[in-house]
Amino acid sequence: MPLDPKRTIAELKELRELTGDSNGAQRVAWTQTWLKAREWFADKVAPLPIEHHWDAAGNNWVTLKGESPKALLIGGHLDSVPNGGWLDGALNVMAALEILRRINEEYRGKPPVTVRVVDWADEEGARFGRSLLGSSAFAGTATVDADRVRTDREGVRMDEALERCGVEMDEFAETTQEQKHAGAYIELHIEQGPVLEKLNLPLGVVLGTKGVERHAITFHGQEAHSGSTPMNVRHDALAACAKLALEIRPIAMKHADAVCTMGSVKTFPGIVTAVVGRCEATLDQRDLDAQVLASMFREAREASERFAKEERCTVEWSRIWQIEPIAFHPKMVELCDEAIRETAGKSHRMPSGPLHDAAEVSRAGIPTVMMFVQSVGGISHNKIEDTKEEHLELAVRAFDRLASKAMDFVANS
Amino acid sequence: MPLDPKRTIAELKELRELTGDSNGAQRVAWTQTWLKAREWFADKVAPLPIEHHWDAAGNNWVTLKGESPKALLIGGHLDSVPNGGWLDGALNVMAALEILRRINEEYRGKPPVTVRVVDWADEEGARFGRSLLGSSAFAGTATVDADRVRTDREGVRMDEALERCGVEMDEFAETTQEQKHAGAYIELHIEQGPVLEKLNLPLGVVLGTKGVERHAITFHGQEAHSGSTPMNVRHDALAACAKLALEIRPIAMKHADAVCTMGSVKTFPGIVTAVVGRCEATLDQRDLDAQVLASMFREAREASERFAKEERCTVEWSRIWQIEPIAFHPKMVELCDEAIRETAGKSHRMPSGPLHDAAEVSRAGIPTVMMFVQSVGGISHNKIEDTKEEHLELAVRAFDRLASKAMDFVANS
Repeated sequence: MPLDPKRTIAELKELRELTGDSNGAQRVAWTQTWLKAREWFADKVAPLPIEHHWDAAGNNWVTLKGESPKALLIGGHLDSVPNGGWLDGALNVMAALEILRRINEEYRGKPPVTVRVVDWADEEGARFGRSLLGSSAFAGTATVDADRVRTDREGVRMDEALERCGVEMDEFAETTQEQKHAGAYIELHIEQGPVLEKLNLPLGVVLGTKGVERHAITFHGQEAHSGSTPMNVRHDALAACAKLALEIRPIAMKHADAVCTMGSVKTFPGIVTAVVGRCEATLDQRDLDAQVLASMFREAREASERFAKEERCTVEWSRIWQIEPIAFHPKMVELCDEAIRETAGKSHRMPSGPLHDAAEVSRAGIPTVMMFVQSVGGISHNKIEDTKEEHLELAVRAFDRLASKAMDFVANS
Repeated sequence: MPLDPKRTIAELKELRELTGDSNGAQRVAWTQTWLKAREWFADKVAPLPIEHHWDAAGNNWVTLKGESPKALLIGGHLDSVPNGGWLDGALNVMAALEILRRINEEYRGKPPVTVRVVDWADEEGARFGRSLLGSSAFAGTATVDADRVRTDREGVRMDEALERCGVEMDEFAETTQEQKHAGAYIELHIEQGPVLEKLNLPLGVVLGTKGVERHAITFHGQEAHSGSTPMNVRHDALAACAKLALEIRPIAMKHADAVCTMGSVKTFPGIVTAVVGRCEATLDQRDLDAQVLASMFREAREASERFAKEERCTVEWSRIWQIEPIAFHPKMVELCDEAIRETAGKSHRMPSGPLHDAAEVSRAGIPTVMMFVQSVGGISHNKIEDTKEEHLELAVRAFDRLASKAMDFVANS
């Protein structure tokens, strides 16, 4: 049974049918629908001569033992955001499965090195606001005490939700055992941005993931009656926040690839008849250069303080999360570039703005690289997320080639 | 028993104790706490030789019959916003009760004209977003079909909530019967703004209520991944909304007494990792001059369309509510001015930015005026809302004087 990229596409559609609805994918981690996706996946791998288990953080490992215990890891995630797309994370897992089938066939169940497919737990962080949960446990960078008390919209605590899925946060530290013998890690992902489409290229090599500064910002003003409070005596927390929402854009645009996003604004009391007394916003800043990232953070913070003063408000910042820029392994980047050129003729090297589990794996010191495939319209985290089928097929083929090169890399490491 | 303004203050504190908590007053209309306030009030009026009933819209009428059926109406409202102040609405009702006691005593239960105290139902519209509900039913301007399907945060429909309090919205039209024999209407209220405090005056005469344009505005952009979407290709609905939040201020400040407020902003999906795809805001615009109000509305709308275009978004407007500017009765304004001067030495004439039930009563053609008493810091709809006790006492005295003058006005009308 040779590699069959069309089967990958058919299986992705099967998964969409099973775990999506008219609003998109609903495989939010630690929910019934996510568990259903994992059961479906377990049935898919069952015919192979593999070992299959969940680790202490709920990462889902499928291991095909090779002549050598040294292992190539191929990763992805079945979890999605609510109303998400059909490819984000799932393409990675299903392409990895197809490659595992091909390797099993080619080597009659005993490849020269061990090959492990991993479906990371809770990459998206959609329910509790903590992304890369499983891969950070793997890397030993989990922040269990800070995370366990997080609550979802219904007030359910993270540790309770995980326990219902049989995962004890107290045991997260054991997850690092899965690093044993890992010789390389590769991950295929949709780009989730417009760059490859603009270049008219199907595939790209990812150089690394941008560093992220993620903050909650609260402006405090004075709630006041909208009818009786003259404009010139107001302490309007929304006005200060609106100024910042606009100012983060020139701050980002000074730098080539940098981005700054205000994704959420909440107003309190948030009623039509009151000047906003308190305004809560989130800021997400990203760049590949740690110095650029630091200066963008400083500039945004200074601007917020200036705007607070202008509007007779005060402002507080609280860091939600940060991660340094992470460069992937130079040799693995070369191999990925070769695999793309051999398959599609032309390659492109680019940073990733979105974070991926590959960043955590790379932090653990495992030689890592990612491959991107073009996204239609650059849209992701949305039911209309899509990639042309011809590009999906090319991606599975190029990624399979990368897997072969990476197995050689592992064997010789 | 002569007029006792200290008793009014003591009763207001009693009510605060009974129906407030550490966050402020909780007498939201159509809730148990509001019903408790009304029961408490029923006990207060019980010793008087009055007739007491709820009308078809839940307005609470206490009638002291006079020699003539021609009636002076004195109004207020016991309902509050959530986490509201102790005086907003309740001062009016409790001062009216004190004046009713004085009149009953002075005329031994039979004043020359009938005197009616009314506690309007749901002045604030805090639960269903529809203010002046009871007084609009009285005035015959209720919008029952549009309002009955309104829902609160828990999804309870307005008509269901009212039914639980024994009020059938189908019978609202009967409320206009209460207009019969009404010769004048007076209302005392805290200013809820900083004007009298700035002038160092305890009391003011209200010339009328400003007209209001109240709209829901939705900007539609394109949700996109915060990490992978370059700044220059975004369709950021928040950016368009932020520009409008800032632009409404110069639009208002071109005119002396005009105000424009964006009280609520909601972002969708509203997560830290996504460019805002949809942004919903509210706009509240007020002025005493109908032409100024119309031009502010037009300017804000045009600006929103310009900003939407700049940000490659679209914008929709939907009117929540509007009311024209309402001027109070010239003779009643004179009487109120006299009453203030005789009590406090100096008066001030001013428009009201907040709406009041008096606006609806005036629309019904009943000669109407309001008296304002200074608010500390101009703050209202907040637990720190306050008025100096000496000013509260002066207010009850001046309002009582106005009641006497208004009774003469009614007798001679």
